Amino acid sequence: MSVITLLTDFGHKDWYVASMKGCILSLAPDAVCIDITHEIPPGDIRTAAFTLAQSYSDFPEQTIFLCVVDPGVGTKRSAIAIRLGRNYLVGPDNGTFSYLVDREKDRDIEIYKIENEIFFNKQPSHTFHGRDIFAPVSAHLAHGVVISKLGPRLEKIEKVNLPRATYFKRKAKGEILFIDHFGNAITNFIQKELEPNFQSNKIMLTVGDYIIPFVKTFGDVAEGELLGYYGSGGFVEIALNGGNAKEEISLRIEQKVEITLR
Amino acid sequence: MSVITLLTDFGHKDWYVASMKGCILSLAPDAVCIDITHEIPPGDIRTAAFTLAQSYSDFPEQTIFLCVVDPGVGTKRSAIAIRLGRNYLVGPDNGTFSYLVDREKDRDIEIYKIENEIFFNKQPSHTFHGRDIFAPVSAHLAHGVVISKLGPRLEKIEKVNLPRATYFKRKAKGEILFIDHFGNAITNFIQKELEPNFQSNKIMLTVGDYIIPFVKTFGDVAEGELLGYYGSGGFVEIALNGGNAKEEISLRIEQKVEITLR
Amino acid sequence: MSVITLLTDFGHKDWYVASMKGCILSLAPDAVCIDITHEIPPGDIRTAAFTLAQSYSDFPEQTIFLCVVDPGVGTKRSAIAIRLGRNYLVGPDNGTFSYLVDREKDRDIEIYKIENEIFFNKQPSHTFHGRDIFAPVSAHLAHGVVISKLGPRLEKIEKVNLPRATYFKRKAKGEILFIDHFGNAITNFIQKELEPNFQSNKIMLTVGDYIIPFVKTFGDVAEGELLGYYGSGGFVEIALNGGNAKEEISLRIEQKVEITLR
Repeated sequence: MSVITLLTDFGHKDWYVASMKGCILSLAPDAVCIDITHEIPPGDIRTAAFTLAQSYSDFPEQTIFLCVVDPGVGTKRSAIAIRLGRNYLVGPDNGTFSYLVDREKDRDIEIYKIENEIFFNKQPSHTFHGRDIFAPVSAHLAHGVVISKLGPRLEKIEKVNLPRATYFKRKAKGEILFIDHFGNAITNFIQKELEPNFQSNKIMLTVGDYIIPFVKTFGDVAEGELLGYYGSGGFVEIALNGGNAKEEISLRIEQKVEITLR
Repeated sequence: MSVITLLTDFGHKDWYVASMKGCILSLAPDAVCIDITHEIPPGDIRTAAFTLAQSYSDFPEQTIFLCVVDPGVGTKRSAIAIRLGRNYLVGPDNGTFSYLVDREKDRDIEIYKIENEIFFNKQPSHTFHGRDIFAPVSAHLAHGVVISKLGPRLEKIEKVNLPRATYFKRKAKGEILFIDHFGNAITNFIQKELEPNFQSNKIMLTVGDYIIPFVKTFGDVAEGELLGYYGSGGFVEIALNGGNAKEEISLRIEQKVEITLR
Repeated sequence: MSVITLLTDFGHKDWYVASMKGCILSLAPDAVCIDITHEIPPGDIRTAAFTLAQSYSDFPEQTIFLCVVDPGVGTKRSAIAIRLGRNYLVGPDNGTFSYLVDREKDRDIEIYKIENEIFFNKQPSHTFHGRDIFAPVSAHLAHGVVISKLGPRLEKIEKVNLPRATYFKRKAKGEILFIDHFGNAITNFIQKELEPNFQSNKIMLTVGDYIIPFVKTFGDVAEGELLGYYGSGGFVEIALNGGNAKEEISLRIEQKVEITLR
């Protein structure tokens, strides 16, 4: 029994996700389909790449990550399948996978271009490769098809633009990568990179006109107060205890954030 | 192991879909529940019928399609179960099934009125037949109950109003049936009907004040340009490369579309 | 094979629900994850408690109800697991479970504080106990871990504020507890409590300036008319036949409703 996760920008109102699952279950009846999200903003590869990387490590080994945010469907962009350790990544080669692959670069990795049409639906459409190429390829991998049968090996994949923070002596400069449903902002400051020189009890955050204390968790500030903290994904996050930081202080993706020693 | 698909207008905020799945799993623990969508506009049978027909063929044989868009719950509308080849359709008799059944009319078909209360929940409510009648009936079918035990055979079902395109010598007249999450409009021009007299390299589309080229896929026009093409369901669609056609040119369901030979 | 239901305020756009499911499947690969809803308004324990109680009885025995509406994450609120008959409830101790537990008080019940870290993810975060504590604990229960191993037994749980209706001789006073996707309002008048003295053919409802007839189901009033009726959960509901009562007459949660004998 294999887990196949689905990550798309298809939304919930149409039948597109269901069509992918139907194709998967037609070929791999035992597969367990788990939605990561289908609410990636249309064509937003940056958000897709970040979302994939954040959820990736919570799944069991041998999971197949099917990711279809595909603004280039019907152009010459490649279809790819990647083996990363014992997991697989399947989707268009447009940067969706590069943020995760960079992070996991110590793992054993192989990249293949998906070209072998015997693993596609018959007469694939020009506009819905999620159903006609990526879902059946994922199902075949779940059923034990050897990845090298999909097509020729590739050396590299397209890159996504998810900038890294930069660290100076008494200051670090970063930006907001993602804002969640609760209005919490996830920055690109990574705990492991920050900790050696910026101890958590000696730093504060600046975003726009706001200077924000750095604490351990919500309960460490009064209700209605802003806080910075290490979030559950290992990044510095900005939140409002008991409220919505995004709305309260108009946070936005790509907004600059600074960390300074007190 | 059976697949039971769920298609409703129940939305995602309440527990109604979960209650149906709970009833299914109580009776058929091995059933795999797959959501087609729960965002059909409330009571919109036309959209339900179209959505069912578009996703139907992607599911494996022996799937049970449970469809509950039921503005007539608590009136005299019938509850029906249909065997279509090796698949089943279960829900209120209000037109939801007729568009699909018309298309698949060459398949072996049997229609039954659902009346036998031994297959219902105890003391079914007057307002939630999805949970109390249609979910348990679907689970019983998944478990091998013979469809003819549900009630008397019917000869016909209610019809939905999903108009067909009309084809003239050098012109075809149709309309928009559905607009998806991306703002792509699906018309009622069917590839198989259009192709004999309207070759795809010789036609163009007119909608409102816009004359739109007909091409193969998104990449065939510049970014920001409108295009017509055969979509993944075999219908002519209208889209905006890299954007949202619905928003850009205010497309709406039932809007007239014309195809002319150049 | 166990059913684990998920009820949260996490929404659908982020990966948080998927991360919980990934953790569950890592520990209990056979578990079937069923979403109750993830659209509880952020931090709204009252709505979470009501939603849990409404869907609870539709699931098979041995279901594990994982409920994470957790505005107090990172404070001193306890984590708890409850055995209720043959089912389990898992989540923060903030009132989410009390409405259901009060209703089911005749069932055999045991409450435990979750403290034993061997059942947590390694290095649990301070802000995502859904993934790091509640999901793995649920998976362990699904796999047969004895609930008493989780931590010390507790005598009581936190209470939620979901007020009960009050019944007088010729009048009953209540309020709206929940408004669903269709705009139907669920009040706190319970059929079993109302029926002895307020026969359904002799009562009417008053909400704001509206006097509303009490009938059996939608079809008993003309389209466009308001109606009161016993809903599928055993409460008095207010709806608009063929429309949205909430929008039509501006219903809101906590709004007062009166029932009078005619």
